[in-house]
Amino acid sequence: MELKNKDLISINDISPEEIDLILDTAKSMKEISLREIKKVPTLRGKTIINLFFEASTRTRTSFEIAGKRLSADVVNISAGSSSVVKGETLEDTGRNLQAMKPDQIILRHSCAGAPKILAEMLPSAIINAGDGAHEHPTQALLDAFTIRERKGKLQGLNVLIVGDISHSRVARSNILLLLKKGAKVTVSGPRTMVPLFIESLGVDYVPDLEAAVAGADVIMMLRIQLERQGKTLFPTLREYSRFFGLNRNILKAAKPEILIMHPGPVNRGIEISPDILTEPYTVILDQVENGVAVRMALMYLLAGKVQG
Amino acid sequence: MELKNKDLISINDISPEEIDLILDTAKSMKEISLREIKKVPTLRGKTIINLFFEASTRTRTSFEIAGKRLSADVVNISAGSSSVVKGETLEDTGRNLQAMKPDQIILRHSCAGAPKILAEMLPSAIINAGDGAHEHPTQALLDAFTIRERKGKLQGLNVLIVGDISHSRVARSNILLLLKKGAKVTVSGPRTMVPLFIESLGVDYVPDLEAAVAGADVIMMLRIQLERQGKTLFPTLREYSRFFGLNRNILKAAKPEILIMHPGPVNRGIEISPDILTEPYTVILDQVENGVAVRMALMYLLAGKVQG
Amino acid sequence: MELKNKDLISINDISPEEIDLILDTAKSMKEISLREIKKVPTLRGKTIINLFFEASTRTRTSFEIAGKRLSADVVNISAGSSSVVKGETLEDTGRNLQAMKPDQIILRHSCAGAPKILAEMLPSAIINAGDGAHEHPTQALLDAFTIRERKGKLQGLNVLIVGDISHSRVARSNILLLLKKGAKVTVSGPRTMVPLFIESLGVDYVPDLEAAVAGADVIMMLRIQLERQGKTLFPTLREYSRFFGLNRNILKAAKPEILIMHPGPVNRGIEISPDILTEPYTVILDQVENGVAVRMALMYLLAGKVQG
Repeated sequence: MELKNKDLISINDISPEEIDLILDTAKSMKEISLREIKKVPTLRGKTIINLFFEASTRTRTSFEIAGKRLSADVVNISAGSSSVVKGETLEDTGRNLQAMKPDQIILRHSCAGAPKILAEMLPSAIINAGDGAHEHPTQALLDAFTIRERKGKLQGLNVLIVGDISHSRVARSNILLLLKKGAKVTVSGPRTMVPLFIESLGVDYVPDLEAAVAGADVIMMLRIQLERQGKTLFPTLREYSRFFGLNRNILKAAKPEILIMHPGPVNRGIEISPDILTEPYTVILDQVENGVAVRMALMYLLAGKVQG
Repeated sequence: MELKNKDLISINDISPEEIDLILDTAKSMKEISLREIKKVPTLRGKTIINLFFEASTRTRTSFEIAGKRLSADVVNISAGSSSVVKGETLEDTGRNLQAMKPDQIILRHSCAGAPKILAEMLPSAIINAGDGAHEHPTQALLDAFTIRERKGKLQGLNVLIVGDISHSRVARSNILLLLKKGAKVTVSGPRTMVPLFIESLGVDYVPDLEAAVAGADVIMMLRIQLERQGKTLFPTLREYSRFFGLNRNILKAAKPEILIMHPGPVNRGIEISPDILTEPYTVILDQVENGVAVRMALMYLLAGKVQG
Repeated sequence: MELKNKDLISINDISPEEIDLILDTAKSMKEISLREIKKVPTLRGKTIINLFFEASTRTRTSFEIAGKRLSADVVNISAGSSSVVKGETLEDTGRNLQAMKPDQIILRHSCAGAPKILAEMLPSAIINAGDGAHEHPTQALLDAFTIRERKGKLQGLNVLIVGDISHSRVARSNILLLLKKGAKVTVSGPRTMVPLFIESLGVDYVPDLEAAVAGADVIMMLRIQLERQGKTLFPTLREYSRFFGLNRNILKAAKPEILIMHPGPVNRGIEISPDILTEPYTVILDQVENGVAVRMALMYLLAGKVQG
């Protein structure tokens, strides 16, 4: 089996079977990072460009390590400042990079839709590494991988997502993927942070965190974007933390075999109480580890053929 | 045949035969980037330092990809800020880097003459990636490659260069190369942007763009350096664009087999009308593609011997 | 013989025999950088992260080249700005990077003790690349290598260290290493820059530079940290330079076979008079060259086994 599209822009674009293919491939990729020699020649002679218009050392590093473990040549371009493009349009930047014959371009951009524009225009495989408040599909895939690794399945699980649902590309990609794989999704968070007609997606909204936690198999806490947040969505961090932060007290309501996830980096004491972070049911570092594996899988599958 | 010098600082330093050697070598290098596995072991075990004192993601990326496709180890040093050198002189920076035994140093610097200083001081091969308003020899070589690819020759062609001739290292390197290879060069642009005695170089100055376009086989539009330009060379961008921007109307005067070039990035609607950019006679993306090939050729030839 | 610890945090942690092992290994590593093909497959498939919380292109480049010449995959993370970690604690950054399965993390940090924290927490080998005013052990090792290369030994030599002893991690690591290897250490510099009870370490303090220079076999000049210095330790740079700068006049008092060292970058005319820099007894560029060799040796030894 192969992936249908040359790109990964949105979870909407891949079928449940394709998700399984990616996750199954990631399983063997994960094993490579545990070897003495963590490198395979699979993508030797391929050029992968990490094109990051938003700063994100963590995600960039994950993709860079993934590419290098597959023996690809990885080139980083950080475009936080105007230095990259001197006022060029995204289209022109894309066409110019394409002229250098990359095989894959990993794009993070503050504008929703930017990866789609490149994907439609360029023959390279485009991987969306986060576009505005739209999607972050590799995050949803690594989250799915982590859940499946612990729970053996996604189908039928109750997954609770807590935080700023409206502005989170992580939430959006996860909701799409989880529903597609037959999980049940509930969201919690301040009313101001939840889209008005979220139920129309097939998602429940439970404003009270304790009530929401009660039935969950998995809790995904979203990051409060301190650096991005307009200040009007909730009165204070303290209040947010009091009502929507996870702590031992709230967790009394949870099932004993609960999993707690977070896309990182965690604001300790805001989204999650620090003492919970080291509990065995908290799998945040598994998510990071699995991120490399899922990205290796994607790079491999999008390279179009089995080579190694 | 081999290159005579260990460095490429100025087009003045290479003979017409050496230019042919570089362009011929680039032709086979170009083919490598079109393969399934775009990598050859030619420069395995060589260290190439990309030392950029001016920000230029595009040129840096081109050199980085060129080096990696030849299997060299490429190390990027961006010295936009003072972080590189804590007030060190260029000489001290050069000697210190040399002590780490690089094979080649690619230098971009805002001061004309900086690459020459390093070249005379260090045993490494120095490639000038643009020094102040002096030269940008790899740009001229990739432009020559692109013209030769389309026209089969340089000899006897009429090449028109339009824009800020006085301050453009691209113009200067191209003029030197084109005259050396027997092309005829005409420049156009505001009087304030053209050196006073340009005719003494063997170059014609035709102030009226339409008249200048009439006899040209190739038109090279220079970039208006919005970020660098003192504001006194022309009254407004609008006026510049009206008199010296390329559009369909002006092109009516041109030969049907005209080629239009630009070193990029294009200021759309200023130097070139956007609708022209996608025409088959506009070869800006060929220039970018050929840039990787020409840089691979140079790195290979300067490495001094055929190795694989 | 092998190194005892998985990390190199402080010279205190390694025995005189381990120092010899590192320097002996560095000797064969140095030869690799002089080959036509300066690369060995020793660390193929290993991932090395260069995690620099303080800007230092020179040291970062030395580690990067060292890793690449051993065929490791090297990933650079510069955390000068907040972009790395969005307010994450060092512990969280460390655990997250560890989840991506690096083999070694090279850490430079403005806080003394930061590398030790990571070393105790993570299975990766941590190499201290400078932590606050605490230590810079690879600098001391490359200095020892350079002295041994010229003098054949460390034992019994008189080494003079001049400058801001109190705030210099270079001074501290060198003092520890030199005493451990049986050299005699004297320091000179303004009283305000020398720890009060330095004699209790077994180090002499001689305030008058000329007197201090008289008996020395090796003089290590420290860098005045213009960018870091509080302004109260001495009245003016001019006065510092007059009393503690090295020049030909002062050197009349020195032994003819003196060695002059400096960790770089030199503030010309402040710590050292420019005309001395090119003398054969000044070995600053040897130090830089040996830096790559010593770092290759360490990476190799910490990788735990002979592989190639």
